Amino acid sequence: MAQDGIASKIKELSKLRMDMHGKDFLLTWEKSDADIRGTLLTAEILKGLYESNISCVLFKSGLAVSNFRDNSTRTRFSFASASNLLGLAVQDLDEGKSQIAHGETVRETANMISFLTKVIGIRDDMYIHEGNKYMREVGSALDEGFKKGVLAQRPNIVNLQCDIDHPTQSMADLCHLKQVFGGLDKLKGKKIAMTWAFSPSYGKPLSVPQGIIGLMSRFGMEVSLAYPEGYDLIPDTLKVSEKQSKQSGGSFTVTHSMEEAFKNADIVYPKSWAPMKVMEERTQLLRAGQRDALKDLEKRCLENNARFKNWECNERLMSKTKGGKALYMHCLPADITGVSCREGEVSAKVFEKYRIPTYQEAGFKPFIIASMIVLSRVKNPAKTLAALLKTRVPRYIE
Amino acid sequence: MAQDGIASKIKELSKLRMDMHGKDFLLTWEKSDADIRGTLLTAEILKGLYESNISCVLFKSGLAVSNFRDNSTRTRFSFASASNLLGLAVQDLDEGKSQIAHGETVRETANMISFLTKVIGIRDDMYIHEGNKYMREVGSALDEGFKKGVLAQRPNIVNLQCDIDHPTQSMADLCHLKQVFGGLDKLKGKKIAMTWAFSPSYGKPLSVPQGIIGLMSRFGMEVSLAYPEGYDLIPDTLKVSEKQSKQSGGSFTVTHSMEEAFKNADIVYPKSWAPMKVMEERTQLLRAGQRDALKDLEKRCLENNARFKNWECNERLMSKTKGGKALYMHCLPADITGVSCREGEVSAKVFEKYRIPTYQEAGFKPFIIASMIVLSRVKNPAKTLAALLKTRVPRYIE
Amino acid sequence: MAQDGIASKIKELSKLRMDMHGKDFLLTWEKSDADIRGTLLTAEILKGLYESNISCVLFKSGLAVSNFRDNSTRTRFSFASASNLLGLAVQDLDEGKSQIAHGETVRETANMISFLTKVIGIRDDMYIHEGNKYMREVGSALDEGFKKGVLAQRPNIVNLQCDIDHPTQSMADLCHLKQVFGGLDKLKGKKIAMTWAFSPSYGKPLSVPQGIIGLMSRFGMEVSLAYPEGYDLIPDTLKVSEKQSKQSGGSFTVTHSMEEAFKNADIVYPKSWAPMKVMEERTQLLRAGQRDALKDLEKRCLENNARFKNWECNERLMSKTKGGKALYMHCLPADITGVSCREGEVSAKVFEKYRIPTYQEAGFKPFIIASMIVLSRVKNPAKTLAALLKTRVPRYIE
Repeated sequence: MAQDGIASKIKELSKLRMDMHGKDFLLTWEKSDADIRGTLLTAEILKGLYESNISCVLFKSGLAVSNFRDNSTRTRFSFASASNLLGLAVQDLDEGKSQIAHGETVRETANMISFLTKVIGIRDDMYIHEGNKYMREVGSALDEGFKKGVLAQRPNIVNLQCDIDHPTQSMADLCHLKQVFGGLDKLKGKKIAMTWAFSPSYGKPLSVPQGIIGLMSRFGMEVSLAYPEGYDLIPDTLKVSEKQSKQSGGSFTVTHSMEEAFKNADIVYPKSWAPMKVMEERTQLLRAGQRDALKDLEKRCLENNARFKNWECNERLMSKTKGGKALYMHCLPADITGVSCREGEVSAKVFEKYRIPTYQEAGFKPFIIASMIVLSRVKNPAKTLAALLKTRVPRYIE
Repeated sequence: MAQDGIASKIKELSKLRMDMHGKDFLLTWEKSDADIRGTLLTAEILKGLYESNISCVLFKSGLAVSNFRDNSTRTRFSFASASNLLGLAVQDLDEGKSQIAHGETVRETANMISFLTKVIGIRDDMYIHEGNKYMREVGSALDEGFKKGVLAQRPNIVNLQCDIDHPTQSMADLCHLKQVFGGLDKLKGKKIAMTWAFSPSYGKPLSVPQGIIGLMSRFGMEVSLAYPEGYDLIPDTLKVSEKQSKQSGGSFTVTHSMEEAFKNADIVYPKSWAPMKVMEERTQLLRAGQRDALKDLEKRCLENNARFKNWECNERLMSKTKGGKALYMHCLPADITGVSCREGEVSAKVFEKYRIPTYQEAGFKPFIIASMIVLSRVKNPAKTLAALLKTRVPRYIE
Repeated sequence: MAQDGIASKIKELSKLRMDMHGKDFLLTWEKSDADIRGTLLTAEILKGLYESNISCVLFKSGLAVSNFRDNSTRTRFSFASASNLLGLAVQDLDEGKSQIAHGETVRETANMISFLTKVIGIRDDMYIHEGNKYMREVGSALDEGFKKGVLAQRPNIVNLQCDIDHPTQSMADLCHLKQVFGGLDKLKGKKIAMTWAFSPSYGKPLSVPQGIIGLMSRFGMEVSLAYPEGYDLIPDTLKVSEKQSKQSGGSFTVTHSMEEAFKNADIVYPKSWAPMKVMEERTQLLRAGQRDALKDLEKRCLENNARFKNWECNERLMSKTKGGKALYMHCLPADITGVSCREGEVSAKVFEKYRIPTYQEAGFKPFIIASMIVLSRVKNPAKTLAALLKTRVPRYIE
């Protein structure tokens, strides 16, 4: 991005009435339109500064704590990259995956890890109806600690995926759409198909489809959610999406046909997930430590999944999309037929065609996370970013 | 803290005749009174600078190696925070918990991890009569490496808990006492009860009670150590405490009644530990890898513990303290009756009353560790800290 | 090193016609003589700056990713130290040791971890004929990602040990030789014995002996490779060494007698490894997950090793070397008879005599790695290093 481009984006940012300073980023639909636009803009500005070899270091010291209660590679690296870009050092809080800490432990630990901490990134997507709640429990412990003088500052929480939303993913996806279509306003009237797809594994979180419909329904798009009967998401996320669609002049529809969703779509996002009911049963069994019952549940679910092997994003289905040229999206890694599994979410041919674009999609995530950190910590972000652009401290010496 | 406060503390520091440059911090009772006072002051100065948004970065690069031979959350984060505050990057040395490395391996590894290292933080509290020895073994390997030109600098060691002492804990506790009572000199004549307390777990280290009596006996306090018969600490630590009490004009007494210790106490520190004899047996069995014998030992100890369930810090006992208002302290996490266990060290009501103060107590630890690093590395700390205060580089941009 | 010394080395560096910018460091024999000399010089310059308390920070932010597919302590710390010296933050990519990722996964992961990454250090030495190939697979994925706009920069790869070479080790060893003998040109005509030695363990990689003959054969030395019949290395590495020996005016010979190799040697490097055929069988069994067959293979190999217990570097053998005073080298940790094992690669007496020199040998590794990073990232290294020397930003405040 030319530096004029950066400057004009900073100007645009300065006009937004955001309310993000000192706030956690837990669900996109709790954020105002200005907040969403500002987060995108700030991510683009940081990416522009980065690519112009201008340092984005705002912190001389400070910790960024990551708390991954489920595996992660790309989000882990995105969080580490974002923190490092701003000058924060990452410190992992490793609790052991099996433990669901609550009550006293959360309250205490939240404070113990925060004495010199600026941001806490949390992934907690294994236990349905629990992950987002956990983040809020951490948040209120931090509120108390700050209020009562335990903490010199109140670190902000970034949701790195919970049971409800995956905002760093959906916002990176939105960055990608903004770039591909040439602006948020160009998304109006476009059709996006968020569809279930077959996968040989089971128990995938619901946060991506919920996050996508919960965010994309805000821009006047035709949001089509498709899944086999029984593969329901958390009902509240559909209600939010429906409401937002109406407000933004778009539409929100649910169908049980992948083909219907793909028909005339500008964008398709085929991705597997487990039915909410299954996740509820699984959460209960995980908590009770019932291994045999868990194995049995897995077996039943895989058998049920197998009835929907035709939910694969392939050339035949892609040909139904607008001009046969819809943009394919995925949060990665995808289950690719004949590549990473025998039968999966997407055919090898379709995936290969869109492979590089999916990498580019993922490339926005570090900057989206950095943006969320900046906006939660910095009082006047436009001014601070303008100062970085003006001072032009080189990020590295070549 | 106002910046005048920081400046006056720096002035106070400049008058102390400390001898900490280039020295390890292994046992508080090896340090002079000036060293102890200087460590507290430096911690307070760093905390003041931090809270005034003044950067404390003294190192452009350099490693802080952490070697945790037992689990840790709060000390791990405190060490990471302290290192980061000063500009050092943490690198974990992960040996695997089961291995007791000695001899050639220690000598070699100590050098191999130290080529660009400024400080090594070690926790080794599992094996009685071994942990502190191990630190000294590392220390003399570093001495040799530095003397013979292997190392460009000799990293300093900070004891993050051993079998004998837990100086970063006891010094943070002392910081807390200094703040609560308004000065070290105000501690004279105060009664502190360091008492055993019931816990449903077994094998807790002895380092906290030993560290507390070994430090608090230096300030003219009435130190009352209480534990059920048989729950002996390492005898040498009692001798040190007795000697120091005499020198400082205080007293040191041992009792086997929790109530007697609490009587008229200004401060109570009820905390479980395992008898030294048990730790010796356990160390031997751990080394021999005798799992069945270990299980049997655990069973016997828990049965013995169970005879002392009445050693719980509750409202009845607290009412015996001075005005019923003694300061409750704990290194955390505490075993809280009805909260984290069925029956524990402290009743929920007492703990809740002092919960926030115990968090504040813990909040001194990062600064105590940073202080120990600064004093071991910097030749003229008062001058260096004054320069930080004068230059006022912002720690972060808001 | 005096600062005049640093300046003259920078001048020397400026005259070399290197071709390392933007290049990976995978095998020493793919690098030109100027590249090798430049890498040594840059390591020495960085060491000189470090010891003169001059900051070597070239990066305000940026990640250094480490990917250890086998255990490591000293290389891990060397990589961390090097990265930190230059201002990069280390982020581990932890795949789980058992997984051999290929194809789609490598291509995708390589890009996902690289959005803000400057360097990727990889150790992959478990699977023969695989490790180096894996690094090239990562490299070409990065090429594609950079070319297609996924990555703003193409991180460089540093080989931290593969199935073929261990360039950070052999180059650190060469630094040591340069210092001990007073210059690379002084190595001409010197005899180095790279010999197999007995070890009570099995399956040690071939990369060190292959790396040593593949590098030392370039300086006109008499390179004598010795091993018991059957303990063959990868044939190509012998061909390279032979060719280079001829070109440099030295010699390259293979013998099956340790004594013959030691005869008149100026330098000895006795170190155990597994026969290539065994590593091939082992790789196959590891991939197939055949535990019983692996145990059986181990048993057979240890039995075969046991036939060569007399391949121990002891005083009798050392007395055969030039003046009985050959320089003993080892990559550490060595299997020391009576110290770390009952019977091993080297007698306790010989090792103890050279213990400190082997530590010094290891001490070059952080600077060799830092040098490889600098030369791959910086366009005009002599100019950049001269600027560091001139600006003299203190690395730390004392």
